[in-house]
Amino acid sequence: MQRGREIHLISRPVGAPAKENFAIVDVEVPEPVAGQLVVRNTFMSVDPYMRGRMNDQASYVAPFALGHVLDGGAVGVVEATRDARFPVGTAVLHSLGWRTHAVGPAQAFRSIDVVGVSPSVFLGVLGMPGFTAYVGLFTIGDLKAGETVFISSAAGAVGTIAGQLAHVHGACVIGSTRSAESAAVLREKLHFDDTIVVEPGHITDQLRAAAPRGIDLYFDNVGGEQLEAALEVLKDFGRVAACGMISGYNDPVPGPSNLAKIVQKRLRLQGFIVSDHMDRNAAFIHEIAPHVAAGKILGLETFVDGLENAPEAFASLFTPGAHIGKLIVRL
Amino acid sequence: MQRGREIHLISRPVGAPAKENFAIVDVEVPEPVAGQLVVRNTFMSVDPYMRGRMNDQASYVAPFALGHVLDGGAVGVVEATRDARFPVGTAVLHSLGWRTHAVGPAQAFRSIDVVGVSPSVFLGVLGMPGFTAYVGLFTIGDLKAGETVFISSAAGAVGTIAGQLAHVHGACVIGSTRSAESAAVLREKLHFDDTIVVEPGHITDQLRAAAPRGIDLYFDNVGGEQLEAALEVLKDFGRVAACGMISGYNDPVPGPSNLAKIVQKRLRLQGFIVSDHMDRNAAFIHEIAPHVAAGKILGLETFVDGLENAPEAFASLFTPGAHIGKLIVRL
Repeated sequence: MQRGREIHLISRPVGAPAKENFAIVDVEVPEPVAGQLVVRNTFMSVDPYMRGRMNDQASYVAPFALGHVLDGGAVGVVEATRDARFPVGTAVLHSLGWRTHAVGPAQAFRSIDVVGVSPSVFLGVLGMPGFTAYVGLFTIGDLKAGETVFISSAAGAVGTIAGQLAHVHGACVIGSTRSAESAAVLREKLHFDDTIVVEPGHITDQLRAAAPRGIDLYFDNVGGEQLEAALEVLKDFGRVAACGMISGYNDPVPGPSNLAKIVQKRLRLQGFIVSDHMDRNAAFIHEIAPHVAAGKILGLETFVDGLENAPEAFASLFTPGAHIGKLIVRL
Repeated sequence: MQRGREIHLISRPVGAPAKENFAIVDVEVPEPVAGQLVVRNTFMSVDPYMRGRMNDQASYVAPFALGHVLDGGAVGVVEATRDARFPVGTAVLHSLGWRTHAVGPAQAFRSIDVVGVSPSVFLGVLGMPGFTAYVGLFTIGDLKAGETVFISSAAGAVGTIAGQLAHVHGACVIGSTRSAESAAVLREKLHFDDTIVVEPGHITDQLRAAAPRGIDLYFDNVGGEQLEAALEVLKDFGRVAACGMISGYNDPVPGPSNLAKIVQKRLRLQGFIVSDHMDRNAAFIHEIAPHVAAGKILGLETFVDGLENAPEAFASLFTPGAHIGKLIVRL
């Protein structure tokens, strides 16, 4: 029987996640029983939403159990099979990440067409982050051509795709990031009309300078001071698609002091979670795939090699500016 | 020529409004020119939204000018007329309050049917506060029978009507107020299912005790800690109809530290201003008038006598628990 490795959550982070919260555990990879597959993972996703699951608190997904392996998005290759629909060598997408080998019933896996693309795109531009961008902009945010959208954490996995999708829809796109290098990439490679390298204490002024006539939609990945700035600069009847509030994931931050703008400007703030909107996934793929194939929408990726480096990669998600695009652990 | 009096804003309040911000000014009431009416005001409205207009800052209505009379909702009787559609003695509703006599073009006035009712109801249950309650609950809040709604500042002009409208629609109604006496009136006279006499620092626990299975809609009149509590207790896919955030009108207050709940629970917060929804006014009157006539929805009113007491009455709006229902200055 072959050996594998997996990452367990052994203590709950208080504030920022740290190496001590995780352990790498050697395990035996069992043979598949009837209806099961054994998949060797090749790429594994680390995502900010996982931070919430590390708390012992009910949220939209159950908390991770202490002493157990962490789940997460991953792609891999079928190594052993007891389901004829998934022959050995099939590329699959699944949510049993944070381990070298995933063993489970066939229905936990979806085969993916990796001809001409890296399987990792199914964790990024064609996967959950890309779909999140699509749902936030259009299903929640009602973005229309000619409008101005502000995207925070624009160099992140969701932000990079949101900006490009908004651009191909004819919107004016402003993105915020923490690094001048990332900002340059957003403008030069990803068609952002303008960028803000955020300076705490000055974000409202920065956003106003970038959008003197105001913004119609704020795609919020961070909350906190950037939400406050957006509330100032949104036009009457503007919208906020609340995708994440990463600024408060590790430690709660006070909310904006200008929430009364919601009333004065008749704003609509709406939170969403992409898994509620799977009925739109086919439309998303139908729309984005040709742009990706044509090179008009790029799925930027940053790779970290080795399962053992996943906890550190995960922690780096909370260090803004540390990477650009989708952060992926390559096994 | 007869004499009248009006109230001018002579300095902008910093924080709570005070007597010194206002002056009572004696004026001559001119004779009407062609197309004009002279109206002797009988009742005058003081409303929280006016606080925003006292700042020198663009909002959804222009700021009040210093040294000029304050506008506001009022009802009165035509005393002199140069428009045949408004004979002397006609009862009218208008927005030229804060003075004993209003002089203006006929189109600034709307005649009202005061047979069997006090004209003051057009400033309360059948007027802007009642309509605000209706728009917030149904147009913005999508309230449905069987749902649970939480209304803050429930003993106020809007809250008392919102609670009763929600009740006749088959909702379970929870209201917050600052005084045990008001709470008793809400439960015993206005059909509230439960009330909270708010204790700062404990509001989340109080709301959870009143709504152990959560709330579907929060009708927000105050913002601040009550909004924070509602975000905790709202069910997944819950809504907030943001009508006002009076807690921050005089001085900005920090926002809730739990805005990430908007994402986790996929909440929708939507601000509104009733004047954007005048297309719903006929439906509102059609719906509420029979309930008012049948005594099923009560328009509670608190009267303050004398124009000179309007500034103090206005200031008392920001002293929670000071009165119940619609606060009206009787001239």
